[in-house]
Amino acid sequence: MQIKIIIAGPRGKMGSEAVQMVNHEDSFDLVACIDRQNGGRTLKDVEQLPDLDVPVFDDPEQCFQETDADVIIDLTIPDAGFDHSKLALLYDIRPVVGTSGFSQEQIDALEDLSITHGTGCIIAPNFAVGAVLMMQFAKTAAKYLPDVEIIEKHHDQKLDAPSGTAVKTANMIQESRESKQQGNPNEKELLDGARGAEADGIHIHSVRLPGLVAHQEILFGGPGQTLTISHDSYNRASFMEGIKLSVHKVMGLNKLVYGLENILE
Amino acid sequence: MQIKIIIAGPRGKMGSEAVQMVNHEDSFDLVACIDRQNGGRTLKDVEQLPDLDVPVFDDPEQCFQETDADVIIDLTIPDAGFDHSKLALLYDIRPVVGTSGFSQEQIDALEDLSITHGTGCIIAPNFAVGAVLMMQFAKTAAKYLPDVEIIEKHHDQKLDAPSGTAVKTANMIQESRESKQQGNPNEKELLDGARGAEADGIHIHSVRLPGLVAHQEILFGGPGQTLTISHDSYNRASFMEGIKLSVHKVMGLNKLVYGLENILE
Amino acid sequence: MQIKIIIAGPRGKMGSEAVQMVNHEDSFDLVACIDRQNGGRTLKDVEQLPDLDVPVFDDPEQCFQETDADVIIDLTIPDAGFDHSKLALLYDIRPVVGTSGFSQEQIDALEDLSITHGTGCIIAPNFAVGAVLMMQFAKTAAKYLPDVEIIEKHHDQKLDAPSGTAVKTANMIQESRESKQQGNPNEKELLDGARGAEADGIHIHSVRLPGLVAHQEILFGGPGQTLTISHDSYNRASFMEGIKLSVHKVMGLNKLVYGLENILE
Amino acid sequence: MQIKIIIAGPRGKMGSEAVQMVNHEDSFDLVACIDRQNGGRTLKDVEQLPDLDVPVFDDPEQCFQETDADVIIDLTIPDAGFDHSKLALLYDIRPVVGTSGFSQEQIDALEDLSITHGTGCIIAPNFAVGAVLMMQFAKTAAKYLPDVEIIEKHHDQKLDAPSGTAVKTANMIQESRESKQQGNPNEKELLDGARGAEADGIHIHSVRLPGLVAHQEILFGGPGQTLTISHDSYNRASFMEGIKLSVHKVMGLNKLVYGLENILE
Repeated sequence: MQIKIIIAGPRGKMGSEAVQMVNHEDSFDLVACIDRQNGGRTLKDVEQLPDLDVPVFDDPEQCFQETDADVIIDLTIPDAGFDHSKLALLYDIRPVVGTSGFSQEQIDALEDLSITHGTGCIIAPNFAVGAVLMMQFAKTAAKYLPDVEIIEKHHDQKLDAPSGTAVKTANMIQESRESKQQGNPNEKELLDGARGAEADGIHIHSVRLPGLVAHQEILFGGPGQTLTISHDSYNRASFMEGIKLSVHKVMGLNKLVYGLENILE
Repeated sequence: MQIKIIIAGPRGKMGSEAVQMVNHEDSFDLVACIDRQNGGRTLKDVEQLPDLDVPVFDDPEQCFQETDADVIIDLTIPDAGFDHSKLALLYDIRPVVGTSGFSQEQIDALEDLSITHGTGCIIAPNFAVGAVLMMQFAKTAAKYLPDVEIIEKHHDQKLDAPSGTAVKTANMIQESRESKQQGNPNEKELLDGARGAEADGIHIHSVRLPGLVAHQEILFGGPGQTLTISHDSYNRASFMEGIKLSVHKVMGLNKLVYGLENILE
Repeated sequence: MQIKIIIAGPRGKMGSEAVQMVNHEDSFDLVACIDRQNGGRTLKDVEQLPDLDVPVFDDPEQCFQETDADVIIDLTIPDAGFDHSKLALLYDIRPVVGTSGFSQEQIDALEDLSITHGTGCIIAPNFAVGAVLMMQFAKTAAKYLPDVEIIEKHHDQKLDAPSGTAVKTANMIQESRESKQQGNPNEKELLDGARGAEADGIHIHSVRLPGLVAHQEILFGGPGQTLTISHDSYNRASFMEGIKLSVHKVMGLNKLVYGLENILE
Repeated sequence: MQIKIIIAGPRGKMGSEAVQMVNHEDSFDLVACIDRQNGGRTLKDVEQLPDLDVPVFDDPEQCFQETDADVIIDLTIPDAGFDHSKLALLYDIRPVVGTSGFSQEQIDALEDLSITHGTGCIIAPNFAVGAVLMMQFAKTAAKYLPDVEIIEKHHDQKLDAPSGTAVKTANMIQESRESKQQGNPNEKELLDGARGAEADGIHIHSVRLPGLVAHQEILFGGPGQTLTISHDSYNRASFMEGIKLSVHKVMGLNKLVYGLENILE
């Protein structure tokens, strides 16, 4: 039996990839889209979208009433995503939402609704399964090999260093090891910055070069050995695996789960 | 309080490293050694060993009777290791044994003894924490990114390809993913062997070069991303972390645990 | 002073990238295109091409007569590329041609014309500067570290293994080192293919995974050390640097050069 | 015909490796050693050295008079190395000296003597062939891919960051590319030091972890591609290849060459 899916935000970068993915996946059935600018049309009438006879709604409530759906994949902006999810839960449609923009209040409100209705809901700031696994493994490895450094590499137009993922990784590692001073206590930087940034003793190095996309390595060292966990992300297709997995998992949930890591066993 | 330790096999490659490690670790106290060739001496009289006043026994039973010990680290050969462990359990001394050479019968016998006496026992075919973590992570990652290849690299005098660790890794991955045919179904080797060895669909590539020591990479690919877990082992010091960890863990056990992976949480 | 450029094949994958590149490069001036299907139009009337007032010719001779050009970048098919280049040399327009499809006779004919007219010409089977440098460096390194293995990694839909670049690299290495048997003379494959394909003693390993694009590592091992040269190609933009470089170099040539490596000093 | 070799400093870390290497190399013949503490003995009487009937001299002049030698490998300290080399050149024995400690005056003096006598001489601050090739390749690559970052990784007891090799590499790259500001002009370090140290626009990142030995990666990025050159040094054996090569090369020289890179073609 196919899982019947609504996609909100089908024209966005992530949304249009998701339309393709759901359309190509045998176990999924795309039953509707929500797009405030194209209500009343079908997908084939919307520029840049595939030639499909799928109805597009501008009003989410109408969509939920008229469509027999199991899951809504929401790839819009946080405010719309919150409204869609709240309403979807009332109609027992399970939200799978890709955002890091919800406030704690919004998450709590959705959690309450989710539990009350016994309807699953997944909110994921990062749908890249590989990146989430990398962070989980790093958290475990740091228990046994507590000396760790992070190298993240991105294209040279990126503004901020270090990357959000590198900082998040350092935070997760800090949950599983004691704070410690790494390296030689008398070590000396002959050139400022050589040893990188420091977060609770974890050194983070940010490489920026044209040609690079989004890469991270986490290096753990112990006497006589090193363990390295690295992730390369080349394009948005990397998020589709996580969305696919979330859709399957949300069908078996009766409460809200925050973070892809919490549905990876 | 220090953990009082006996080392069996103090002159071997692993044993002599273990003597150094136990001697340098504040929480450990080396109370005796078992060495069939040097009974009645102290360590400082044995060539190549540190200048320590630690008694050496050739008879394990005498050693266990005369020594107040918590743990025996056995780094001898399987037959001696089995005899030592059996006897140690009778004296409520916890064995930590580094061998892959025990038969299932031997393991079962030690397990029975361990449970009967409520005395912990750890048997580990591989004490390199990093290598064991690598295999554990690979097993988990394959659930979500089932396309995987293994590259192992060793010095060019190694006889067998692929390495035992690579084969073991492939076996562990097979426990967590369905068997699958990877790559293009019509793919063609223009030169024989280009696509490496195959174990249940997992391709394994063995690199042999002077200068290399012992290295392995496991590559997982999904649309738009790759996840790589790699381990480099430079020398026997890499096993000492695993022995150290096992000594601490065995103190809290009341049964036998086989495999370092089962004491890593 | 800008270099005045004609592009042949502006609608192809490489051609359309080249149009963008020439258009954005201050030192270049796009003066015409040759496209057999769009003669008489300007670029802005051709679908998917930028909004430029550049004339398009279907007849190359007419293009060369009516256009004051320094260089023609030919990104069509070999037969057309040969005809365009021959004619261009007659008009003292320097060809920069990206193809591995010319016969030796065709190359010789263009070389004769090039010398006779004293007009530069560059033919390059591979415009990716990084890949060409990698192969050059490998050829040099093998003189001093003759033990070498190649790992090439591509997306899992690729049909052939090993890749053409890997085979070409092995051939180049063979020019600079004696043929030798690497590894332990008694080494044994426990699983067929573990040690990869072999070209004159050089082992080649082909990894195929979804997510990968086009990657190659060349590993050189000597006692106590390894040297690794690796190249990652993410998209066709990687070829544009080589075309740009070739256009600048061809202006100073008075004969034909085959292969990007021969204009890298 | 074998090359007859004197080794000065046979008990040092490098010297004792060199004794082993010369002894095992078929084309080499170890004819004498210079060791100020063991004059009049033979190697087999000197502790920790191999069981060889090779005479040891404490007086270099006596050594050169009584020994028919082609080459002296000097692995002592700079002052002794300078005296030995000067004297050796007078006896037409070719010096191969591993030191970065000579003053420009000392080098000039040896060069004069070398030319006057028509006797070859090689002085090399770094005998690791792989490391020298890495730096040479980096200098060439930077001409075509001028965006570059360096990551060097060493054991966590190293005091200085960045390493001398990393700084030397940056200096060599600066000879072949214009100084440039890399990365986004508006890039912002959210944590100080994230972007590493900077040498003329080249970012250098220093990783320090237990288990690491001595490793360096140089990353070059261009649109759509990256080129990476990396070197791993595991132990002093890595220097022996460079000494071996230098001994062969010095036989064909009639002047002084400074730096291994200048005998690599």
